[in-house]
Amino acid sequence: MTNSNPVLTADLGGTKMVIALVSPDGKIVDRHRQPTLAKDGPETVIQRLYSSIDLLLDKNNILPRQLDAMSLGIAGIIDTRNGIVDKAPNLPGWENLKLKDKIYDRYDVPVYILNESDAAALGEHRYGAGKGLKNIALITLGTGIGGGLVLDGKLFLGSSGSAFEIGHMVIKDNGPECGCGKNGCLETLASGTAISREARRRITEGETSMLLDMVKGSIENITAEKVHEAAKQGDPFSLRILAGASHYLGLGIINLVSIINTEMIIIGGSVARIGNLLIDPVRQMVKDKAFPLMVKKLKIVRARLGEDAGLAGAAAYAFDQR
Amino acid sequence: MTNSNPVLTADLGGTKMVIALVSPDGKIVDRHRQPTLAKDGPETVIQRLYSSIDLLLDKNNILPRQLDAMSLGIAGIIDTRNGIVDKAPNLPGWENLKLKDKIYDRYDVPVYILNESDAAALGEHRYGAGKGLKNIALITLGTGIGGGLVLDGKLFLGSSGSAFEIGHMVIKDNGPECGCGKNGCLETLASGTAISREARRRITEGETSMLLDMVKGSIENITAEKVHEAAKQGDPFSLRILAGASHYLGLGIINLVSIINTEMIIIGGSVARIGNLLIDPVRQMVKDKAFPLMVKKLKIVRARLGEDAGLAGAAAYAFDQR
Repeated sequence: MTNSNPVLTADLGGTKMVIALVSPDGKIVDRHRQPTLAKDGPETVIQRLYSSIDLLLDKNNILPRQLDAMSLGIAGIIDTRNGIVDKAPNLPGWENLKLKDKIYDRYDVPVYILNESDAAALGEHRYGAGKGLKNIALITLGTGIGGGLVLDGKLFLGSSGSAFEIGHMVIKDNGPECGCGKNGCLETLASGTAISREARRRITEGETSMLLDMVKGSIENITAEKVHEAAKQGDPFSLRILAGASHYLGLGIINLVSIINTEMIIIGGSVARIGNLLIDPVRQMVKDKAFPLMVKKLKIVRARLGEDAGLAGAAAYAFDQR
Repeated sequence: MTNSNPVLTADLGGTKMVIALVSPDGKIVDRHRQPTLAKDGPETVIQRLYSSIDLLLDKNNILPRQLDAMSLGIAGIIDTRNGIVDKAPNLPGWENLKLKDKIYDRYDVPVYILNESDAAALGEHRYGAGKGLKNIALITLGTGIGGGLVLDGKLFLGSSGSAFEIGHMVIKDNGPECGCGKNGCLETLASGTAISREARRRITEGETSMLLDMVKGSIENITAEKVHEAAKQGDPFSLRILAGASHYLGLGIINLVSIINTEMIIIGGSVARIGNLLIDPVRQMVKDKAFPLMVKKLKIVRARLGEDAGLAGAAAYAFDQR
């Protein structure tokens, strides 16, 4: 079926919201961005979302009924089948929120609600690094770790219609405490937060690093980005910290591939900017430690589309539902 | 398409081989069993397999060309798409063996080669505990830990065409050494071997248990079965050992569900005979520790078909290929 109507998509995170118009070939025609101001609570944030939508439609001379659909990627645990935000740790007050119904009531077009990483996975599969492949996984490394899974060319949502929560896979029983209530989740060992926390902890315990000069002695200002900067300059301490994160990310990927054998793992999110310094040791570890048959064709690559992955992927999801 | 021809299936393990005739409704019409005598090497074992097949066909007055297919479940890492036994730790010498071509050359019927746990997963899905569901996983607990995954009603083989290797998911970085070269794989923490090894280790270190009397002081004779027996009689030591295995199995299941959200987890294999003493704490842990949305409809149950699961499942795989 051909349809030349665009999809209005959104990427709604804890700090900013981006609204976009996406054409049927996955091109982002126009976008609008504003801060989420999440602390104002769901009602106010949703009003802000509506005004962004209205503004973008208006600017492009499009009426809601001329849209193919609206499709929103949200940072949280989403019940996509029922269009409900189950929980969103970075959006205070968003719990068991029937967002799909709300938006539908206002705009009267088909509405889809996705986890933002699921949307990004579909975007990278359809238009980015995983184009043309059958089975891929996206792992997004940022403050936390999320991801999405595309199997047989379709977003796999599982039986509960919720996201692929690879950040909460336990790889170190009795490891660091995680916000989810478990210990040793991948997120506590290989996320941006884990990298900066580990660097701070070890410096506090007396290890030496050029990082201490970089933050002028304020250990609390050490971030994953600064660890990356110092590592690029050859700081042995920072290189060790990144090697630790690579080790855990490698284990996480081996576990993933042992369960669900994909052709490609795409690494996205802000921490992926560390690039090969982080990813080369992961590739080596997977090669050395996983079953050869499972990984002989596996490619581990960086995401290509950045912010656009979620916006275009949410649209792809809507197009897939036709 | 209807077809009333049976499938000849086999379950080929390190100790015994079972050959069966399976009707299109999944009923096992007849079977033949003999020891594998794996140490004789692949050629001799394959000749023994042929004589079992010939005997069963003869006894039932069936010619090979009257079969719909032959479909074999094998204990090992299998490249199902190409019909190759990649590696089979319990079948010495079976490496990169083009078994499908060999059997096809002799019998001239379609031949399928599956991992035995994959076959069992499909059997439990089609005719057993998971009947009628969309997404299920089977975890087989025995000497090792294996399993299979059925997604959208079909056996999921992943991009390499190999099995779901959940036993080699790392859940305890730096944990016990595994035969696969990694440390802290689920198999080293919750298999029958792990249960008996942990019991032996702790008794050697001086902990007390009625197990010591049960084996008349010969610690090396402690098996998972004996730990189960002692636990049923209330032995606090054996109950602690089982609680440990439940803890790790629970983590493994939480990880599995976090990655690939199934409706049901089916526990099979000899260790599953421990029953609710092992599985009830797993259910509780999953309820307490996994994301509620992901597990609110999840059922964790015991396998129903025993040995028949692999035999009937291998046939179901053949029927699915038509």
